[in-house]
Amino acid sequence: MAHRSRLAGFIIDCQTGDLGAAAAFWSRALGVSIADPDSGGTGQYAEFGDTPGDLHIEVQKVEHPSRVHLDIETDDLDAEVSRLEALGASRVGFVKRWWVMQAPDGQRFCVVPLREDNARAAPTVWD
Amino acid sequence: MAHRSRLAGFIIDCQTGDLGAAAAFWSRALGVSIADPDSGGTGQYAEFGDTPGDLHIEVQKVEHPSRVHLDIETDDLDAEVSRLEALGASRVGFVKRWWVMQAPDGQRFCVVPLREDNARAAPTVWD
Repeated sequence: MAHRSRLAGFIIDCQTGDLGAAAAFWSRALGVSIADPDSGGTGQYAEFGDTPGDLHIEVQKVEHPSRVHLDIETDDLDAEVSRLEALGASRVGFVKRWWVMQAPDGQRFCVVPLREDNARAAPTVWD
Repeated sequence: MAHRSRLAGFIIDCQTGDLGAAAAFWSRALGVSIADPDSGGTGQYAEFGDTPGDLHIEVQKVEHPSRVHLDIETDDLDAEVSRLEALGASRVGFVKRWWVMQAPDGQRFCVVPLREDNARAAPTVWD
């Protein structure tokens, strides 16, 4: 059965004890607003608004070294993960509601549930 | 004097000897087209088309470990680099036509000349 996926956006992983300072830096650097300084209420995520293409862009407080990672969103996690494996990616682990994967050349990225409540470009339909 | 900047997009740095394979993976993973498989004719860059918000997204063949880095584009490199330094970023080095910088929490990013030949959202004007 066909499923859909698209680039959801990117997460700016910051190895920091101060989520607020990291969010302030990146919102000013990129010229985007802070839509939610504590998305989910866990003290771990700050979500930006007024983003290009309505992409999901957020700062995440992490323990590992800082980096940027991409999120792909889909209406069928299993089908999308299988599609990406066939392209050469590998599964790293399932976390909460999403799959962490690794690209053939080593970048980590996540496959997350599709959110329709935004103005992002239409997903690609994969047969 | 006022200057302008905005998020230009992101570069998928791939530690690989095969730019074509890396571009093929990421174009299929993200559901974007390959607008130019050898942007600039150096064998180092493959540029994507049909991107969200008309963001500049490309795969770059690199020697260092794979990662994703952001590009900020501006009509005044010196003013923008100074603005970012005041926010806490630091200069790493000038390469060809752009500045490589490092964010307070360690991510590398680039500050590049503004390109107007696209449909990206209007830049922010900084006084």
